[in-house]
Amino acid sequence: MPLLVMKFGGTSVADLERIKNAAMKVKREVDRGYDVIVIVSAMSGKTNELVGWVEGTSPLFDAREYDAVVASGENVTAGLMALTLQEMEVPARSWQGWQVPINTTSAHSAARFVDIPRENIDTKFAEGMKVAVVAGFQGVSPEGRITTLGRGGSDTTAVAFAAAFGAERCDIYTDVDGVYTTDPRITSKARKLEKIAFEEMLELASLGAKVLQTRSVELAMRYKVRLRVLSSFEETDEKSGTLVCDEDEIMESKVVNGVAYSREEAKITLVTVEDKPGISAAIFAPLAEAGVNVDMIVQNISEKDYEEYPGSVTDMTFSCPVNQVARARKAMEEARAAGTIDYEELVVDTEVAKVSVVGIGMRSHAGVAARMFKALADENINIKVISTSEIKISVLIDRKYMELAVQALHDAFELEQA
Amino acid sequence: MPLLVMKFGGTSVADLERIKNAAMKVKREVDRGYDVIVIVSAMSGKTNELVGWVEGTSPLFDAREYDAVVASGENVTAGLMALTLQEMEVPARSWQGWQVPINTTSAHSAARFVDIPRENIDTKFAEGMKVAVVAGFQGVSPEGRITTLGRGGSDTTAVAFAAAFGAERCDIYTDVDGVYTTDPRITSKARKLEKIAFEEMLELASLGAKVLQTRSVELAMRYKVRLRVLSSFEETDEKSGTLVCDEDEIMESKVVNGVAYSREEAKITLVTVEDKPGISAAIFAPLAEAGVNVDMIVQNISEKDYEEYPGSVTDMTFSCPVNQVARARKAMEEARAAGTIDYEELVVDTEVAKVSVVGIGMRSHAGVAARMFKALADENINIKVISTSEIKISVLIDRKYMELAVQALHDAFELEQA
Repeated sequence: MPLLVMKFGGTSVADLERIKNAAMKVKREVDRGYDVIVIVSAMSGKTNELVGWVEGTSPLFDAREYDAVVASGENVTAGLMALTLQEMEVPARSWQGWQVPINTTSAHSAARFVDIPRENIDTKFAEGMKVAVVAGFQGVSPEGRITTLGRGGSDTTAVAFAAAFGAERCDIYTDVDGVYTTDPRITSKARKLEKIAFEEMLELASLGAKVLQTRSVELAMRYKVRLRVLSSFEETDEKSGTLVCDEDEIMESKVVNGVAYSREEAKITLVTVEDKPGISAAIFAPLAEAGVNVDMIVQNISEKDYEEYPGSVTDMTFSCPVNQVARARKAMEEARAAGTIDYEELVVDTEVAKVSVVGIGMRSHAGVAARMFKALADENINIKVISTSEIKISVLIDRKYMELAVQALHDAFELEQA
Repeated sequence: MPLLVMKFGGTSVADLERIKNAAMKVKREVDRGYDVIVIVSAMSGKTNELVGWVEGTSPLFDAREYDAVVASGENVTAGLMALTLQEMEVPARSWQGWQVPINTTSAHSAARFVDIPRENIDTKFAEGMKVAVVAGFQGVSPEGRITTLGRGGSDTTAVAFAAAFGAERCDIYTDVDGVYTTDPRITSKARKLEKIAFEEMLELASLGAKVLQTRSVELAMRYKVRLRVLSSFEETDEKSGTLVCDEDEIMESKVVNGVAYSREEAKITLVTVEDKPGISAAIFAPLAEAGVNVDMIVQNISEKDYEEYPGSVTDMTFSCPVNQVARARKAMEEARAAGTIDYEELVVDTEVAKVSVVGIGMRSHAGVAARMFKALADENINIKVISTSEIKISVLIDRKYMELAVQALHDAFELEQA
């Protein structure tokens, strides 16, 4: 029997009415001849309620108890979804993480899958069950304690089940109807993509597109799980949404397929750093320890200082989320006080944003960067930092030009047209 | 290490503040040198929320899914209680039913204990854990599905753990401060009992006293678990509350220790029933099948009919809760239509109440019934039906005299004085 994995997020199962709506989508796939594994999140708001209680007990809570409490939200939805399917005469039952079992590491609140044995669920499919409703976001540790994968982990659960059970596809039902060339709130020209390659989706997810969790895309790419993103709140059919798949499945790709942005960025420059081996490690190790998510890094010879102290100094610039600036500054000042690094000045610019273009076509096309920089120059937008990967070019610019930059790049790469 | 079981009901853990209050009571016992097993209910209101959702999915829901959903309420409290204890530096962890494991039958929503192996919890006590916080009201079936014991089952969980672990005592913390000679809302002369025998508590529980679930008292009696009922909301010490114990522990007992009542009773009489062997079974089997909880039963020769059809007819009277009268009537009419029973008329009196006196002293004292009937006669209260057991006398009377009857009996048996 061909098998599908279908995942419904918190807003898609927020109340009994929505659970029923989701169950109807599941029933339709069963009627088409599929066995289905449904992965559910907690009803929206419930996880926050549970987390609030845990945080209310203690500022330094035991992550094992946190997991045991918080995982209950998904268990409730799983039971209600199974009941709703049964009411539609679809043979269904719920599965909690320990019942499958979803074996994970013991890293509570950030657990990783070890394995998902198929035996228990396969036995029930063989006995006539058509739908296994699995509580997302959770598992069980080797010690028999309940674990969670961290927030948003239900997407990852869905992909892991699709890989373990060799699903034909993993459908992620959410509150948007697919992946767009850019955020439709920024330009009405944004176009829904029919297909997008794993690598592109991965870049978009890490660049701030909120459709899918980065880790779930990584996992899908590794196990070649075809992912489909589509809306819970619309009529959907086989052609709905956006398919995230191997690039081989995409006949012809444009050079650029998406424009992403991240609004709350900050740029930090350490002015006149001694330029010697090991200096990067001396700077970035304390930042990592302080939990600062450093994104772009640029090292450039500071011309004026070069004349004064030839060959011995540089400026080091990096970006991080705005709300981590205080932590970054503290880490740098402590490192300077400890004598592990030295710099003249720490210059912070909290008024920047990151804009990126992404496309697997870049690999085989020259001139993408030039086209991007020209489009920005035509709008008089100054580029402060540039960083590139094989299929992505990101720039930091003044935050006030962010929307303008996104619109200009969407036009320049003709993303409106399929 | 001596061991205590402490159980906190839903109102005792209704929010974080109350959980903290309960945790302080647990800590005090740990400080006194006890290992403690804490049994918790769901935060009050949560079980109703979960049940409401389940009932919203389907009128004929799968009890296995009901159990999986509803049991999550206790899991949340168990985690929060463990966290709160940890914050007080008491080594504690939560246990869900399947983790202990609490092995039960597969009778979902009405499961019974099969066994509670001590190994897992004992291992943790040996490693330094001082408190095991166990989710009440739940277990796991031989098939690995989550079961529940039915509502109020957390008292039963507490007693079962006390029996399995040989606890010195099982303290049931609730919203009243003990067991009273009668309901203090009916007479201010009601007195809190220091001790009460299992048998008496059992009668009082089945007669409508809401302090303890009948089944938990049965279990405590069978395994000789000393139960103490006391308040979550007051300062308590070793002498607080009421101890429910073996009668050997009670030095001197009065003839009557309590007056119980049940307000919403109905009396149903089948007039002129053929008096032949098997007629009782023919009447009460369909009532049981229809889910009518028949309580008192009286069969009496109907004088006037006796003259018409000598020796062959009788009247059959029974009582049941008022809200089951419609069901009872339907069952009787169907049985008559099917020809398995025959009667002239079905007379229903929905305006009655049951008042009972309970005391193990009755066994060795004559004249208790006479004293009861005289007290009621002195108030001109007519007795409609009488039923007795070894340690209890119950009467059905007009509902409007119920409070008066309770007060009169409380006075007549001098329950105000210890």
